[in-house]
Amino acid sequence: MTDFSKTRDLFHLPEGMIYLDGNSLGPLPKSTAARVAQTVTEEWGAHLIGGWNDCNWMAAPKALGDRIGRLIGAEPGHTVIGDTLSIKVFQALAAAVTLNPDRRVILSDNGNFPSDLYMAQGLIRLLDRDYELRVVAPEEIEANISEEIAVTMITEVDYRTGRRHDMKALTQKAHDKGAIAVWDLAHSAGAFPVQLADCNADFAVGCTYKYLNAGPGAPAFIYVAPKHADTAEPALAGWLGHDAPFAFEQGYRPGQGIERMRVGTPPVIQMAALDAALTIWDQVDMQALRARSLALTDRFIAAVEASCPELTLATPRAHVMRGSQVSFHHPEGYAIMQALIARGVVGDFRAPDILRFGFTPLYTSDADVDMAAKILAEILDQRLWDTPEYKTRKAVT
Amino acid sequence: MTDFSKTRDLFHLPEGMIYLDGNSLGPLPKSTAARVAQTVTEEWGAHLIGGWNDCNWMAAPKALGDRIGRLIGAEPGHTVIGDTLSIKVFQALAAAVTLNPDRRVILSDNGNFPSDLYMAQGLIRLLDRDYELRVVAPEEIEANISEEIAVTMITEVDYRTGRRHDMKALTQKAHDKGAIAVWDLAHSAGAFPVQLADCNADFAVGCTYKYLNAGPGAPAFIYVAPKHADTAEPALAGWLGHDAPFAFEQGYRPGQGIERMRVGTPPVIQMAALDAALTIWDQVDMQALRARSLALTDRFIAAVEASCPELTLATPRAHVMRGSQVSFHHPEGYAIMQALIARGVVGDFRAPDILRFGFTPLYTSDADVDMAAKILAEILDQRLWDTPEYKTRKAVT
Repeated sequence: MTDFSKTRDLFHLPEGMIYLDGNSLGPLPKSTAARVAQTVTEEWGAHLIGGWNDCNWMAAPKALGDRIGRLIGAEPGHTVIGDTLSIKVFQALAAAVTLNPDRRVILSDNGNFPSDLYMAQGLIRLLDRDYELRVVAPEEIEANISEEIAVTMITEVDYRTGRRHDMKALTQKAHDKGAIAVWDLAHSAGAFPVQLADCNADFAVGCTYKYLNAGPGAPAFIYVAPKHADTAEPALAGWLGHDAPFAFEQGYRPGQGIERMRVGTPPVIQMAALDAALTIWDQVDMQALRARSLALTDRFIAAVEASCPELTLATPRAHVMRGSQVSFHHPEGYAIMQALIARGVVGDFRAPDILRFGFTPLYTSDADVDMAAKILAEILDQRLWDTPEYKTRKAVT
Repeated sequence: MTDFSKTRDLFHLPEGMIYLDGNSLGPLPKSTAARVAQTVTEEWGAHLIGGWNDCNWMAAPKALGDRIGRLIGAEPGHTVIGDTLSIKVFQALAAAVTLNPDRRVILSDNGNFPSDLYMAQGLIRLLDRDYELRVVAPEEIEANISEEIAVTMITEVDYRTGRRHDMKALTQKAHDKGAIAVWDLAHSAGAFPVQLADCNADFAVGCTYKYLNAGPGAPAFIYVAPKHADTAEPALAGWLGHDAPFAFEQGYRPGQGIERMRVGTPPVIQMAALDAALTIWDQVDMQALRARSLALTDRFIAAVEASCPELTLATPRAHVMRGSQVSFHHPEGYAIMQALIARGVVGDFRAPDILRFGFTPLYTSDADVDMAAKILAEILDQRLWDTPEYKTRKAVT
């Protein structure tokens, strides 16, 4: 079983900072700098073009995909990394609608990350065949899965509230009604054990820069269930998804299984950082991680509710409905978060009124939780947030 | 004027290697390792999520795009980096066909890189409205630009032969016939001065890991002409191309100008390597580069033709029709290239019979050219390529 009191030492955490934003961008593993330097100097520098073979760059996207696959309950050989999460959403969605050609409704919820909705809107403009993106409240997804639905496109954990959908039940209902289930694991991969195969998910996508700690701009991943692996049609038909990329044929022929979801040249330097991050994850017991995550989020909820009556919990209390973050509503949420950050407690703000805190057992301690709650209470008690400096929103947050 | 005898020292080139494959993957600049380490340790490690603002990660794609823009004759503010070249081809093509809605033919040539053709094929499958990808011989492009053509999709320099299209004339003809011109600069950017604005190009895309030396998996770039900047419709409608990404609106609204061609989170670590590479390019006089490139390719053609009568030149002799590479045909091209690589002369092979050599003034000397030609002649004279070891093709080259 993973000893979470020891894993903290695997990360570089700035002195005096309590980092509760690993659900947005994970911190730097101590091993990453050397691993990246190795790829830059020893691989690229010494092997140049030969690195594609000599250093396994060409095979790396699938090898890295399988290491993520273990964390999300995927069958080996059905996950590959590359591109960004938005691109992977587009690929999954385009393949999914093609697998269900007689239906025209993509169902999602308004707690889905906006980029997923935008990518669906962009796809629908291309398709131009009376497709509809139907967006309902998260709680209404289940009731809206009908025989009209071609594809459900759901982010398992709501990026605002941390509310977790029931993947197994919703996938089952989608299948009962003849729909294809696409899952976005942005706030799931590395947050708790996901069971894609057990849930019969059709497609899944996610990113590696949040809980997985692979760094800013780290590549995304995509999973295609074995039953669709050789029938899913790649809309983004790039040469590295071709069955024989180096034959330079004039016509596209999709590669075997998940290989077809590759597009262009993989980001070799970012892959080195992902490799370093996954070397930590390779050792993590995901059930133990979940237990520890729930202990941390429970502890924070209890401490904040005891000392900050002005805040309203936005995250479900039921464990089964919770990811690995805790969110509170407050009309001055933006200013409160600025005051927190100024005091070394880093969470983030999401419009219109959400204070969001990520809990990551690999490097978050009980003492961090207690101190964060204490500082939050001081800021609220003393209205330390109520200054023009904190209330003026920056363009980018 | 750039002193090319001094720029060679800015690159790490392995002892004993004559590297003539910078048209496939450029070598490592000596400054890159430190620049990448800075981003990993000082930026990500110390700033964590704050890096998006503190370290200008969010603004970097456009700033880097403008530095590439100088090399390709783009108006400032109209080039942005991100994703891979295949993705950027898809974006440009999808926007271009939408700007010419009454036409259904995309014209390209069989010397275009296959991934461009594949991406067009994938787009056409999505559009499903009797679109046609018409592929002709490179020499027949001009005659085939008619009033039927919606978009011309042409790679300026043929990846096999190094043959260069006349961008200005073809763009003019496209416009005369009411077509939109999309240019792929994969073998142009950093190879010679490109004049996008002067040629009235509508869209251009390219990669940065070849002549620009930004490393394996470096991001691509896209240019949209000012006249289309606010009308081009993004098919890959990612959140970072939204007019207000952090407002988290439910509906997509394209960003201002070139910003709308951003999709997802930019690859921050790869951007650091691109920044280091462009710091060299910022100082390069592109006219001087072109003169030196032509001197190198002329010298190699003359030396090889004098000593290797078995080889047939595939690259045009006319300077105006030449990129910065030289290719020869030989039925045993694969084995000959393996024998060359074994002797430290690194070019590459492209099916079915092409030996390809890239010439890059920043680090290729006259002595490299002479030695490469001498070793090539020895291999041919003594049939050193004629061994089972060299004749057995590897899966990946």
